[in-house]
Amino acid sequence: MYTYHFMRNIRLTLEYDGTQYHGWQSQKGTGRATIQDALEQSLFSLTGVRITTAASGRTDARVHALGQVVNFHTTSRIPAASWAPALNQLLPHDIRVTASGEADEHFHARHSATGKVYTYRILNRPAQTALARNYCWHIPQALDLRKMRKAAVCLLGKHDFSAFRGSGCAAKNPVRTITSLKIGKRLDFVELKVEADAFLQYMVRNITGTLVEAGLGRFRPEGVRDILLSRDRTKAGKTAPPQGLFLTAVHYGNRRRSKKV
Amino acid sequence: MYTYHFMRNIRLTLEYDGTQYHGWQSQKGTGRATIQDALEQSLFSLTGVRITTAASGRTDARVHALGQVVNFHTTSRIPAASWAPALNQLLPHDIRVTASGEADEHFHARHSATGKVYTYRILNRPAQTALARNYCWHIPQALDLRKMRKAAVCLLGKHDFSAFRGSGCAAKNPVRTITSLKIGKRLDFVELKVEADAFLQYMVRNITGTLVEAGLGRFRPEGVRDILLSRDRTKAGKTAPPQGLFLTAVHYGNRRRSKKV
Repeated sequence: MYTYHFMRNIRLTLEYDGTQYHGWQSQKGTGRATIQDALEQSLFSLTGVRITTAASGRTDARVHALGQVVNFHTTSRIPAASWAPALNQLLPHDIRVTASGEADEHFHARHSATGKVYTYRILNRPAQTALARNYCWHIPQALDLRKMRKAAVCLLGKHDFSAFRGSGCAAKNPVRTITSLKIGKRLDFVELKVEADAFLQYMVRNITGTLVEAGLGRFRPEGVRDILLSRDRTKAGKTAPPQGLFLTAVHYGNRRRSKKV
Repeated sequence: MYTYHFMRNIRLTLEYDGTQYHGWQSQKGTGRATIQDALEQSLFSLTGVRITTAASGRTDARVHALGQVVNFHTTSRIPAASWAPALNQLLPHDIRVTASGEADEHFHARHSATGKVYTYRILNRPAQTALARNYCWHIPQALDLRKMRKAAVCLLGKHDFSAFRGSGCAAKNPVRTITSLKIGKRLDFVELKVEADAFLQYMVRNITGTLVEAGLGRFRPEGVRDILLSRDRTKAGKTAPPQGLFLTAVHYGNRRRSKKV
């Protein structure tokens, strides 16, 4: 007689404060703390087994997540909903599992993703900030939101985003589809919310840096279309700093189809 | 011949992240880091003179400030508006001077204050938080805001707030006037904004703890009036934790001229 251990596919949603981490991706041997290492260490403490996790995508050093999605395979019998409280007992306080569940065996946090939402937060006032210092980009000069929105419109839709791509980006295809790019304001904070099928390396931070140039009057809003069409990274604005960026949500499944039902 | 050094009265507005501090008030000899010590150390580095500062009031350990007001006397010729950028070069990043100016010689940050505004922030959702862990009180059970607002109404106006006063409170007179108490919600955050002429020790945190009991259905909203009238601290709810509390603003000037003049 033997026991057959069913392999289960567990899905987690993570919120993390990226301030103290060198991003999501494990960098073993470098001594750098990463979210993935912290999570896999806690999974090892919990199950006694080395487990490799897959995330919807990397987040850079100091970048935050409100809704990062991760999955992993395990034979553990821990009930699906119990992974969140169990892991939260073991994880550092700046990483929390906000939900856990069992996924279809074919589900993969990155490959199955159909869309992602990032939020970039700017503090737009002359005075510096103590409380938001790790959670925004401080821009003391007044931003013209109308100009930023006008520039943003050029970026909507399916385009070759090479002009907004980090030099280390490994993606073969630079074409992405931005389905929504909204710029809002609440108190002194300007928030850019960008939704796309997927993103290139530094894409949100490079877009933000460029829209900020437009908002400061240094680029004409219409010029952002020329930058996009040039596919030339040197023409776009500088990369916005990491601490203002939040991976807000990851979408799975045919979202359009579910709408109709 | 001699130079007469005019004594100037400098007023600062401070934003600080209280997470790493044992409150505003200096606790010399204890080795505990306080906001006052950090500020006075920076003032010493800047002027070469030991300067004692006065704040609008103490804030407790881990409590934050968006608009703490401080004043001090000095013969330094540093222009009034230059104190903010100069001090921000010297202060730790979790303390920022957001404004500086010259005040009337009689101005005193505490004695001249005519009103104060505190905000208490609650995260009201089942899932724990990584990003807001130092900036809110996490309450997983759903709060009934209508009950909380109904209870809050009892506290408006001039009352003896002994039932909501910390046991270490040194104030001779426990009578305070709450001019406004608003409870709002944005996303998963419930925010209590309380304005009064002044506050007793732990008053906002004790009021918050009591209103939360009402919001959870453990106290009847009308019962909060009985608690207030009892002047008995043991009847009120527990003290809400410090990290959800923000000193938002301090008011000066004769806002209700009719009172004294």
